Amino acid sequence: MKVNNQWIRGIWSDDGGKTVCFPDQTKLPFRLEICREGTSDALIRAIKSMQVRGAPLIGAAGAWAAAFLCREAETEEELQEGLKRIAEARPTAVNLQWAVRRVAAASEGLSGAARAARAQKAAEEICESDIESNRAIGGYFAAIIEEVYRKNGRPVRILTHCNAGWLATIDYGTALSGLYVAQEKGIPMEVWVDETRPRMQGLLTEWELREAGIPCTLIADNAGGYLMQQGEVDLVIVGADRIASNGDVANKVGTYLKALAAKDCGVPFYVAAPVSTVDFSMAEGVKSIPVEERSRSEVTDISGIGPDGDVIRVQVAGRETAVRNIAFDITPARLITGIVTEKGIFAPGAGDRPFMPAPAGTRPE
Amino acid sequence: MKVNNQWIRGIWSDDGGKTVCFPDQTKLPFRLEICREGTSDALIRAIKSMQVRGAPLIGAAGAWAAAFLCREAETEEELQEGLKRIAEARPTAVNLQWAVRRVAAASEGLSGAARAARAQKAAEEICESDIESNRAIGGYFAAIIEEVYRKNGRPVRILTHCNAGWLATIDYGTALSGLYVAQEKGIPMEVWVDETRPRMQGLLTEWELREAGIPCTLIADNAGGYLMQQGEVDLVIVGADRIASNGDVANKVGTYLKALAAKDCGVPFYVAAPVSTVDFSMAEGVKSIPVEERSRSEVTDISGIGPDGDVIRVQVAGRETAVRNIAFDITPARLITGIVTEKGIFAPGAGDRPFMPAPAGTRPE
Repeated sequence: MKVNNQWIRGIWSDDGGKTVCFPDQTKLPFRLEICREGTSDALIRAIKSMQVRGAPLIGAAGAWAAAFLCREAETEEELQEGLKRIAEARPTAVNLQWAVRRVAAASEGLSGAARAARAQKAAEEICESDIESNRAIGGYFAAIIEEVYRKNGRPVRILTHCNAGWLATIDYGTALSGLYVAQEKGIPMEVWVDETRPRMQGLLTEWELREAGIPCTLIADNAGGYLMQQGEVDLVIVGADRIASNGDVANKVGTYLKALAAKDCGVPFYVAAPVSTVDFSMAEGVKSIPVEERSRSEVTDISGIGPDGDVIRVQVAGRETAVRNIAFDITPARLITGIVTEKGIFAPGAGDRPFMPAPAGTRPE
Repeated sequence: MKVNNQWIRGIWSDDGGKTVCFPDQTKLPFRLEICREGTSDALIRAIKSMQVRGAPLIGAAGAWAAAFLCREAETEEELQEGLKRIAEARPTAVNLQWAVRRVAAASEGLSGAARAARAQKAAEEICESDIESNRAIGGYFAAIIEEVYRKNGRPVRILTHCNAGWLATIDYGTALSGLYVAQEKGIPMEVWVDETRPRMQGLLTEWELREAGIPCTLIADNAGGYLMQQGEVDLVIVGADRIASNGDVANKVGTYLKALAAKDCGVPFYVAAPVSTVDFSMAEGVKSIPVEERSRSEVTDISGIGPDGDVIRVQVAGRETAVRNIAFDITPARLITGIVTEKGIFAPGAGDRPFMPAPAGTRPE
């Protein structure tokens, strides 16, 4: 994506693969700061602290961490222990475990410079195939946007939750890719952006869309139900962190509430994700997908621009306040109109189990 | 309620009715500051700026504003114009219009000191009857909490949205009154408190409950669906700003989403409100209840304690960001298990129209 006349991606390699660069997402949308890291430990820290975030980008960062590890590790034990640490940096996104396994498998049996080179190539392939599959996802969803536009003859009003744009991937995004492709086709849109408490990833989405010239409006997470009730939403599109083989979707907490409102108001509800997000080893999601709980400070402390123009944090609740910070929820397949993948659109609500066939080579075991 | 060993209410009169005092709710929970006002204009400002908030408290503040106006107004025209301004200070809460009409009706035909005295008496009666009806509401809902406790034999886990506690009323509250009565009976509870973006009234609820010694946990608005999905909520209780005669409920934005999740997960969903909240002139709510939209700054600017310990505001989104700030939503009657009033519990979902008979003398007309 082009930002301030500069082409950037969610993550990219530099110095012939010695380092990777990425925008520090804990600073956005207030400041665009590019980080450069060259070790597996630094990338694990970036994943944990959410300097990189979004399931596909976490996967890519994990792939690069694994590639750096293949260069760093001096013993097989060190390698295995390091791969485990990378895979466990965030618990919910299946992409991370998948990407780490893929880099490890590609370089298995090799050692030294050959292992490092093969691992780097695998990380690069993961990034390239992310862009390719996102473009394909975007094409499928843009066709749906176009259909709604042809039917209504006015800007298509789309609601999205969290950030599943280019910032959450290498480029284009998953949920937002269709919007970027539709924009290329000249289809007018108006996007409702949930702010997405507690971490406010909606601010990233709003920034992304505004930079791209797509009209968008920020709303509190509570407001989407009313907008659907009053007929002001034509489509809902969200990303996914893990999809069970029955089509249950783990995504940012609050997604389930929007899916319920969409169902109640007759608004089509779509999930966009690459096939690598599907965990074919998991029969259903509501009871089985592990949901990460994060630090209380994400709820109690909020970052923004203070009176002096600096980015500061204010405390909205004190230390005496008990807090529970749940990062994801599970949207049951029955509430989902379609799951948009690079292989086409699947309707999990139709009742097929699994909702899509496990593609050769993508099945994570 | 007792706070810091001091008994305070949502609003109370002083100086023999010349002034009223109330905690400034824009400063809570960071600081407890008591305001004192003695003119109708000052109270209109307090209502608009949400120094007083919560439908019943807005009604009481409006009653006092009308009483002050009856003392101030020199002509009938001035009086009528002033009453209209008070009634329109906030558009969604029916209590405000009802209270203003009641004070005006009580003092009608009188003039001078007699009019002022009768209006003051009417305002005092509104406050006293608020406390009385809240206690009655609390008794009915406490019985439901007790029933769940007897059945499960462990603390009753209750989710609430926004603030419908003593801070939103004169005392006890509506939604929280049942919790205070249950606490008096020794029933153990654990309360999930939605933070309630954009204005974070959940912070007031958390403060109220913690001050009262009821265990409570602050959560993002997005989290309640997941908690219900995982069986961690036994009951939902919220207040109401206006109830249509079919039982549709206007309440703080986000209520509808929680009602949908409660229905989907089989969790009983209750609304607590005095009968004066019911607008018997309105057949249904979803299409008819006017919903207030408020300033963008409530979404873009967040108050909290800054690095120096002072209450400051940070800007989370800039001036270029388009914002829509919807203050309420409508929960359809079919999602509501019961509406708890001072006259008992009514089940609007049962299909009776109106869901309760219009009581003599309460019908706003």
